[in-house]
Amino acid sequence: MRTVSWHEGKVRMIDQRQLPWELSFLDFDDYRAVASAITDMVVRGAPAIGAAAAFGMAVASNQAPSPNPSEHLRFLNEAATTLKAARPTAVNLAWAVDRVLLAGQSQKFQSVDDIRSTILTEAQQIADEDILINKRMGEYGASLIQDGDTILHHCNTGALATVDWGTALGVIRSAHAQGKRFHVLLDETRPRLQGARLSAWELKQENIPFDIIADNAAGHFMRTGEVKVVLVGSDRTAANGDVANKIGTYKLAVVARENGIPFYPVVPTSTIDLNLPTGDEIPIEERHPDEVRAPFGHAIIPDDYPVRNPAFDVTPHRYVTGIVTENGIAYPPFVLNLRRAVAGELS
Amino acid sequence: MRTVSWHEGKVRMIDQRQLPWELSFLDFDDYRAVASAITDMVVRGAPAIGAAAAFGMAVASNQAPSPNPSEHLRFLNEAATTLKAARPTAVNLAWAVDRVLLAGQSQKFQSVDDIRSTILTEAQQIADEDILINKRMGEYGASLIQDGDTILHHCNTGALATVDWGTALGVIRSAHAQGKRFHVLLDETRPRLQGARLSAWELKQENIPFDIIADNAAGHFMRTGEVKVVLVGSDRTAANGDVANKIGTYKLAVVARENGIPFYPVVPTSTIDLNLPTGDEIPIEERHPDEVRAPFGHAIIPDDYPVRNPAFDVTPHRYVTGIVTENGIAYPPFVLNLRRAVAGELS
Repeated sequence: MRTVSWHEGKVRMIDQRQLPWELSFLDFDDYRAVASAITDMVVRGAPAIGAAAAFGMAVASNQAPSPNPSEHLRFLNEAATTLKAARPTAVNLAWAVDRVLLAGQSQKFQSVDDIRSTILTEAQQIADEDILINKRMGEYGASLIQDGDTILHHCNTGALATVDWGTALGVIRSAHAQGKRFHVLLDETRPRLQGARLSAWELKQENIPFDIIADNAAGHFMRTGEVKVVLVGSDRTAANGDVANKIGTYKLAVVARENGIPFYPVVPTSTIDLNLPTGDEIPIEERHPDEVRAPFGHAIIPDDYPVRNPAFDVTPHRYVTGIVTENGIAYPPFVLNLRRAVAGELS
Repeated sequence: MRTVSWHEGKVRMIDQRQLPWELSFLDFDDYRAVASAITDMVVRGAPAIGAAAAFGMAVASNQAPSPNPSEHLRFLNEAATTLKAARPTAVNLAWAVDRVLLAGQSQKFQSVDDIRSTILTEAQQIADEDILINKRMGEYGASLIQDGDTILHHCNTGALATVDWGTALGVIRSAHAQGKRFHVLLDETRPRLQGARLSAWELKQENIPFDIIADNAAGHFMRTGEVKVVLVGSDRTAANGDVANKIGTYKLAVVARENGIPFYPVVPTSTIDLNLPTGDEIPIEERHPDEVRAPFGHAIIPDDYPVRNPAFDVTPHRYVTGIVTENGIAYPPFVLNLRRAVAGELS
């Protein structure tokens, strides 16, 4: 069961807004609807939205009316722009769309059918690779977990945030598969509660022991010595190792360092943006105030109470112990070692 | 309008569980029901539960059946034990109950009526003093706020957390009354959302500009330079300046110091426990998991998902810039200056 897949000419996604109450799927045959599904967080998580957008390009290619290859490519360019604009912070979205578009453009196709089949193949490959990459990160990252540890985890970085397996939660999954025994504290992750709803749902299925905590409680468990390691994902990592991730990550990283607790983002290299020198250039999405006011339709405050709702924050690299990638764990100096990680040249 | 008051032989409280939707009052004429109201957070906030418990002793004195003064005092002792056990962390509860009990015991009363009237007078005095103390803290604390500042505030420390006016929110109220112009960021304060529900309700009534944020967002606004000062309350402050306060305070304090932002608890001296050398001795209440699972009855996750729910954390004094009391602002070394603050001898 994949979070995002290609099913009979459509993009099929788990509707993550219904979890943990119901496991349901939605099929899309319009790339604009795929873009909306990304914006509305039917699907979320940097690698998952990358795969969803890649399949969205395959949908667009099916939609493109013209039998003329150059007009077809013009249509795909428009679709790419729409899909890339669906959410601003995660770089995987643009990375996946551009990769698929480039595949469609890069050869001298004689027919629209050729383009269509190349685009779908490339999208499938992104999805398949994602799982392999996660399992490689899982192997590297599992070495950071010892028997008896308590791991602190933020947001959802599991199978639901990827095509399958997961990034930080994939590391936890791999360590569990190796027979390690440990406990996980899941930040509930307000406002959208991805930790309480999605990560808990995944760990319950795997019988990995966990407790959900209010985000506010994470500091208490770090200060009192319970937490041994902090594992998070990333939506975009700059060349210097600054990490944009789900809002609240920055506080965790600062408090972890203050307590001598290692802090590791788990990051496929597709999430590393070597074009950005620092995290200050990463656009931070501000989402609708109702996510805070009325989580999943339950109004907790009146709808005229003013709210600000940044969805991500940036953790400067000085708080980052190391960055787990599918090519190994990068340690400081990140400005050197992230480049090596992307090139597959970590020693 | 007081949060807690004496009304026709009963303790009257605002039912804070109904806010911001409805302003309603509950009257109690049984001290055990007062204790339950404190446990269930009908009333909350260290000074408010102190006043509520003091009036609870007056209720108990009315309930005590015996015409014999020594049996009456025995009944009051039992009531005191029950009321003090209602919540473990805030020291004001024990402080207020003991003060009222001592007043009832300390003189050679000839009649139960004398005891009753002395106890009620003492409880009234605690309530009246609370407002005066808050206004004095407000004057001292307002000096910390400059025009144009953005203030970060956690939980509710306002009129609803006290008898009236407030501690940290009282400082904000005083600065506003002085004509200062500033903006407040209110941590929503999961799990019980005292910031989003109660502090927002108070600031809206005062026309003080604010935005509610998810607790996770506070770090972002500190790191990006928006926040100029952090103001919080305290449920118990140890002799060395370690501050127990609503869960999440510790993370704020660490991140504030990391960003050079001053962090001030606003603390009536009744909250300072000179008998405790450090915060490590402060008991931390763990509350019911359903506060996290189903805030105010809205189930956000299934009721079999495991949860841990500590209600307070301890902020070591090294993160504390200064402590605002009704006798002035105490700065380090706290072990010396908190003693002076309690004695009214801050220079």
